[in-house]
Amino acid sequence: MKRSGKVAYQPRPEHHFTFGLWTVGNPGRDPFGEPVRPALSPVAIVRKLAELGAYGVNLHDNDLVPAGSTAAERDRIVREFQQVLAATGMKVPMATTNLFSDPAFRDGAFTSRDARVRAYALQKTLAAIDLGVELGATTYVCWGGRRFALEAKPNEPRGDIFLPTTGHMLAFIYTLDHPEMVGVNPEVAHERMAGLDFSHAVAQALEAGKLFHIDLNGQQVGRFDQDLRFGSDDPKGAFFLVKLLEDAKWPGMRHFDSHAYRTEDEAGVWDFAAGSMRTYLILKEKVERFNADPVIQQLLAEVDGGKSARVSFGELRNMNFDLAALRTRGYAYERLDQLTMELLLGVR
Amino acid sequence: MKRSGKVAYQPRPEHHFTFGLWTVGNPGRDPFGEPVRPALSPVAIVRKLAELGAYGVNLHDNDLVPAGSTAAERDRIVREFQQVLAATGMKVPMATTNLFSDPAFRDGAFTSRDARVRAYALQKTLAAIDLGVELGATTYVCWGGRRFALEAKPNEPRGDIFLPTTGHMLAFIYTLDHPEMVGVNPEVAHERMAGLDFSHAVAQALEAGKLFHIDLNGQQVGRFDQDLRFGSDDPKGAFFLVKLLEDAKWPGMRHFDSHAYRTEDEAGVWDFAAGSMRTYLILKEKVERFNADPVIQQLLAEVDGGKSARVSFGELRNMNFDLAALRTRGYAYERLDQLTMELLLGVR
Amino acid sequence: MKRSGKVAYQPRPEHHFTFGLWTVGNPGRDPFGEPVRPALSPVAIVRKLAELGAYGVNLHDNDLVPAGSTAAERDRIVREFQQVLAATGMKVPMATTNLFSDPAFRDGAFTSRDARVRAYALQKTLAAIDLGVELGATTYVCWGGRRFALEAKPNEPRGDIFLPTTGHMLAFIYTLDHPEMVGVNPEVAHERMAGLDFSHAVAQALEAGKLFHIDLNGQQVGRFDQDLRFGSDDPKGAFFLVKLLEDAKWPGMRHFDSHAYRTEDEAGVWDFAAGSMRTYLILKEKVERFNADPVIQQLLAEVDGGKSARVSFGELRNMNFDLAALRTRGYAYERLDQLTMELLLGVR
Amino acid sequence: MKRSGKVAYQPRPEHHFTFGLWTVGNPGRDPFGEPVRPALSPVAIVRKLAELGAYGVNLHDNDLVPAGSTAAERDRIVREFQQVLAATGMKVPMATTNLFSDPAFRDGAFTSRDARVRAYALQKTLAAIDLGVELGATTYVCWGGRRFALEAKPNEPRGDIFLPTTGHMLAFIYTLDHPEMVGVNPEVAHERMAGLDFSHAVAQALEAGKLFHIDLNGQQVGRFDQDLRFGSDDPKGAFFLVKLLEDAKWPGMRHFDSHAYRTEDEAGVWDFAAGSMRTYLILKEKVERFNADPVIQQLLAEVDGGKSARVSFGELRNMNFDLAALRTRGYAYERLDQLTMELLLGVR
Repeated sequence: MKRSGKVAYQPRPEHHFTFGLWTVGNPGRDPFGEPVRPALSPVAIVRKLAELGAYGVNLHDNDLVPAGSTAAERDRIVREFQQVLAATGMKVPMATTNLFSDPAFRDGAFTSRDARVRAYALQKTLAAIDLGVELGATTYVCWGGRRFALEAKPNEPRGDIFLPTTGHMLAFIYTLDHPEMVGVNPEVAHERMAGLDFSHAVAQALEAGKLFHIDLNGQQVGRFDQDLRFGSDDPKGAFFLVKLLEDAKWPGMRHFDSHAYRTEDEAGVWDFAAGSMRTYLILKEKVERFNADPVIQQLLAEVDGGKSARVSFGELRNMNFDLAALRTRGYAYERLDQLTMELLLGVR
Repeated sequence: MKRSGKVAYQPRPEHHFTFGLWTVGNPGRDPFGEPVRPALSPVAIVRKLAELGAYGVNLHDNDLVPAGSTAAERDRIVREFQQVLAATGMKVPMATTNLFSDPAFRDGAFTSRDARVRAYALQKTLAAIDLGVELGATTYVCWGGRRFALEAKPNEPRGDIFLPTTGHMLAFIYTLDHPEMVGVNPEVAHERMAGLDFSHAVAQALEAGKLFHIDLNGQQVGRFDQDLRFGSDDPKGAFFLVKLLEDAKWPGMRHFDSHAYRTEDEAGVWDFAAGSMRTYLILKEKVERFNADPVIQQLLAEVDGGKSARVSFGELRNMNFDLAALRTRGYAYERLDQLTMELLLGVR
Repeated sequence: MKRSGKVAYQPRPEHHFTFGLWTVGNPGRDPFGEPVRPALSPVAIVRKLAELGAYGVNLHDNDLVPAGSTAAERDRIVREFQQVLAATGMKVPMATTNLFSDPAFRDGAFTSRDARVRAYALQKTLAAIDLGVELGATTYVCWGGRRFALEAKPNEPRGDIFLPTTGHMLAFIYTLDHPEMVGVNPEVAHERMAGLDFSHAVAQALEAGKLFHIDLNGQQVGRFDQDLRFGSDDPKGAFFLVKLLEDAKWPGMRHFDSHAYRTEDEAGVWDFAAGSMRTYLILKEKVERFNADPVIQQLLAEVDGGKSARVSFGELRNMNFDLAALRTRGYAYERLDQLTMELLLGVR
Repeated sequence: MKRSGKVAYQPRPEHHFTFGLWTVGNPGRDPFGEPVRPALSPVAIVRKLAELGAYGVNLHDNDLVPAGSTAAERDRIVREFQQVLAATGMKVPMATTNLFSDPAFRDGAFTSRDARVRAYALQKTLAAIDLGVELGATTYVCWGGRRFALEAKPNEPRGDIFLPTTGHMLAFIYTLDHPEMVGVNPEVAHERMAGLDFSHAVAQALEAGKLFHIDLNGQQVGRFDQDLRFGSDDPKGAFFLVKLLEDAKWPGMRHFDSHAYRTEDEAGVWDFAAGSMRTYLILKEKVERFNADPVIQQLLAEVDGGKSARVSFGELRNMNFDLAALRTRGYAYERLDQLTMELLLGVR
C-alpha cells in the first residue's frame, strides 16, 4: 500500500466530518482567563469548514440565534444561515440546546430541584428541536427531532453528574416510554475523564444499536474537560476507535467536539480543524494496513485455541478439559501489541 | 433521640449483615508481599461471625471446597459446613465462583479468546451454582441459581475490564434473553476507583428494580482495589448510601466485601468485622436524625420553588417564566450541607 | 470535655482565619456558565468578614485595583481600603498577583515562551508586591515582599503545570539563589487533584521549615479544581490536617481559598464563610479529644514495639532479630481507625 | 534519513539497556491470580538478555540470593552469577533491596512504627549494598554503595506512600546529611499513577543534577501499578521522554522496570524484552528527525517573540509593553503538535 500524502489524507464530504459551531468558534475563555480570540460568525465558519472538506456543522440553539433574539431576528438569522448552507453544500446533521450558560440553570436544567426551571428547560429544548428540524438535522443531542442521543459526562461543571457514563445512559434508555427513539452520543473526553476505555463503551452502544452520534476529541484521564484535538493524546486509543467505527462500517457523522488551544489565533483554529480530520484519515489508512497485515492476522487467528461447538448444559457438566495446557499456553499479546505499535509508529 | 451506645449499635441478625468467607479469611497477601495471617477455617469463621451478630456468610466455590477436591471430599466439607450453619443459625444468602485464581483464566474466563477456557468457566460456574443452591443461596453473583447479580469493576487485574461500571452492566442486562432474572451487585470500591458517585449508581439500579445485592466497603478514588472497612473513608458518601438503602427500605443483604489491613493479626480481623457493622448502625441512626431534623427538612421543602402542574407541550410553548427570579434565587445548599456535616460530626 | 455549641465554635481574630477577596467575592462563573451573583465590593467584604469573626483578607492585585486603573484611581481605592481595615481591625497578611486572566498570559506568565510576556509578568508582580507591602502583607504568594510562598497545582487551566505538587515546589526552592526567603503555600484541592495525601505534603513542608501559608478547602480526587467549603469533603483528611497544624502549634494564617456553590445567592456566600471557620473549630475540638483519649493514646503507645537504642553499623550487622515475632505481630490499626472514626462521628 | 529496519533498531551494549532480574523473571502472579510461568534462573536470564543486546541486569538481593540462604550458599550463588557475567560481558549497574515481601515488613520497613523492624530493614539493606558492590554496581536504588537513588511512588501497596512523587523525593534529599550522595530514580508508572507529566519530573531531576537512574515502562493514569512494556501506552509521552534523555546526552542506564503480560509464556517474555529496547530505538530515531525537521524547528524558533535583554528592576518598572499585540498573538502550537504527531505516526 502506497502512502500518497496530501491526496490520501484529504478530507472530503463523503468522510462525514462535522464540527460544532461552538468548537471552531470557541473564543478561548477558561475558568481562569478571559476570551483570547474574537467570535467568528456562523456564516464565516460554514464557509471555511466547507473549504477544508467538512460535511457539515452542528449547533446549540444559541450558537446561531443569540439568547433574547426577537422572532423576526431569529428568522432573519436562520434564513441567512440556510443560504450559506445551500451555497456551500454543507449540512446540519445534529442540533442541541444550550441548557447551561444561563444563570437560571445554576441548579441544573431537566434535573433542577425547581419545577419552574425544569419547565423552562423543556420549553427551550422544544424550540431548539424546531430550529434543528428547520435546518435539516436528523439527530438531537441531549446534554430531540427525530432521534435523540444522550451524552454522558462524569463531572464538571457539577462535582458529580447524573448518569455519568455511556453505560449509565444506555441503561437509562431502556426505562423510557420510547426507547426506540433514543440512543447515545459518547464523547472521548467524557469517558476518559473517568479513566474508562472509550472503544469498549462505543462497542457496547454499537452492539445495542444505540450509537446515534459520536463526539471525537482527546483527553487525559482524571482531569478537567480538555476537548483536545482528536488524536493528539492517546493515539493508540484513537486508532482502536477508528478501527471499531470503520470495521463496523458505522454510517454516522465523525463529529469533532473539541477546540483549539487557548494559545491560538484564528490561523491556529483552522490548523486545529484541518489536523482533526487529517489525523482521522491517517488512522483510517493504518486500520486498512492492520487488517491486511498477514503476521498480525495470523496472530489473531491463532489466539482462539480452536472453535468449540456449542453444547448443552448436560454435555458441558461432563466435559473434560486439558487444564495443564490451558494453564501454560501463551497468547502472544506482547508480540501482537508490539507489531501494532510499530504499525502505528509507521515503521512497519 | 437518645444515644444508647453499645445497645444502639449492636448488630443483630435482622440487620442482614453478611461477610464473604474470603473477606475475614483474607490472609493479607498483596502484589508485593506474602501472606501475613494463617488461613481461618470456614467453620471457625461462621462461629465467630455468628457471635458478632452477623446474619450470614457468602462464598466463592473454592473458599469452601478447595480446587481439585474429589466428590467425596466436597460432600464431607459441605456436610460439615451445613452443620455449623444449622448450629449457629447463620445463612448463605449468596454464592459466586472463583474465575480468576487459576492460571487457566489468565486471559479471562467468560471473555477469554480461547473457547475451551470459556467452556471450562461455564462448567465451573454451573457447579458453583449447584453448591450455592445446596447451601440455600438465593442470589448468584457473577464477577446464577435463582437470581444473578452482575458486578462491575473498571480495572484490575486487567488494565480495562469489559462493562466497567454498574451503568454498563445495567445496560447489558437489557440485551439478555432473560433480563428479568438478572440484576447488579454494585460495589463501593469498584465505582469509586473510576471516581463515580456510588449512591447515584445504586439509585439507578434501585429505580430499575435491579439492585439484587450490594458490596459495602471503602475506597479512595483512582487507585488499586483497596476494599477498606466500610465507612473508614468518605463517611459522607457512606452516610448518603445508608440513607438511600434505608429510606428505600431495601430488603437485601448488607454484604461487606472488604478485608482487614495487612498489618492486622486475627484480633484485628474481628475488630474490622465488628467495626464494619457498627459503623453502618451509627450511620443508620444519623439517617433517622436527618429525616427528623426540622431545620434540614424545611430547607429541603423550600428548595423546589413550588410544584408546577403537568402541562401539555402546547401549553408549555406559550408559558412565560420569570427569568430574572430564576437567575437570582439561591438554593441554600451551602447551609444544607453544613448542617449535614455537623449532624455527621455529631455536633448537631 | 463539654460541648458548648455556639460559644465553643465561634471564630475570633486570634484563630487567624482569613479569606481571599476572590473567594467570598466569587460571582459563580464556570466554564459552562455565566456569573450568577453580583460582584461584592472589597469594602463590603471586609466589613462582613470582620462581623463573622475573621482575622483578615488576602488579595490579588486586581481583586482590589481593577486592571487599567490610573495611578490616582489606584491610590484612592487603596486609601479607602486602608480605612475599612483600620475601622474593623482586619489585616491583609498575604498578597498575590493575577497572572492568568489577561489574554496576554495565554501561554503562561513566568513560563511563557515569549520573553516580553515574562518581563510583563515580572513588572506586574513587582507592582503587586508594592501593593501588598502598602497594605501590611508579610507573605507574597506566587501561583514576593518579605516571604514568598510557592503554590503548586498539577493541572488546570493547562493540561500539565510545571512543578505540579508541593514536593516539586519544595525541591525547586533549594535550587534558588535565596532559598531562605521562599517557602510553599500548599492547597488541599491542588494536592487532592493528583490523589495525593495533603497532610503528608504539609508535614514535609513543616519539617523543612517551609510552610509559609496554607490554602484550606475541599476537593474530590481526579477532577477539575473544585475549591469546596473546607471539611465538606473528606472530613477524615480535614481532621488529620487540623491535627497536624494544631499539634505543631503552627502560627500561620488559616486561609480559606474556596468559594460558595454556584447555586448560592449572597446569603449562601456568608453561610459558606461562616461554615468554613466553624468546621475548623469543630475539628480542632476533636483533635483535643483525640489527644486526651486514653484508649487511643494507649494504642498509639503500644504500636512501636519498644524503643531500640541507636547502634553503629558494625553492631547492626551482627544484631539478631526475632523474625517470627515481627512477622506475626498485629498493629491494631483497624481498632485505632475505628475509634478515630467514632470520635469523628461524635459517638465517642 | 533512511529507515533501515532491523539494523537501525538493533539494541547493542552501548545503548545501555538494562532489565531487572525481577522483570523478565516475573512469574505473573497478581492480586487475584496465581503464577502463570515457571521461575527463570538468574543465570538463564543473563544469557538471554546478552543475546538480545542488553548491557546489564539489576537486582534486589533476594532476586539472586533466596531469603534464608546460608553464607556458603550465598557465596556459591554469587560466584556462579559472576561467572555468567564474565562470560557474557553483562554488567550489574544497580542493586536494591527487597524490603516488602517478608511479612515482617507489613507495616513498612524504614518507616515502620516498630523500631525493631526499622533496624532489621537497615541491616538487610547493608547486606544488599555489599552484594551490589561485590557485583560491581555503582548505584543503589532505595524503594546505596556509592550513589543512592530514591524512587517515589504515590500508592500501592499502601493507600498513601510517604514522599509520593519525584518532586517530594528531590525535596527530601536536600534535608539529608549527605545530599551529594543521593539522587532519584523516577519511574514512568509511578508518576503516571498520580496523573503527573513524567518528562517534567525527569527534567527537574536532570536540572538539579539528581537523575541517578530511571525506570522505563508504561502506565495508564489513576490505576494500579501496571508496569507495561515501554511505549505500549502513551507513545507521545514516551517520545518526549526519549527526546529529553537524548538531547541532554544523559549517560545513565535505560532500565526497564516492567514485566510481560500475565497472558504470556516464556516466548512472550522475550518478545516483551526485545520490544522494549526496539521501541526506545524507534523513538530515538524519531527524535533525530524532529531535531532535523526544518518546519518544526522554524515554528519553535518563531514562538519566543524575540529575545529580550536582561534588565534591572528599576528599568523593568518603567518598561512599556504592547499589550494589544501580546493579547492577540498566536503561538501555532496546534500546528506544531499536529506535525509532531505526524512525525510520530510515521507519515512525515
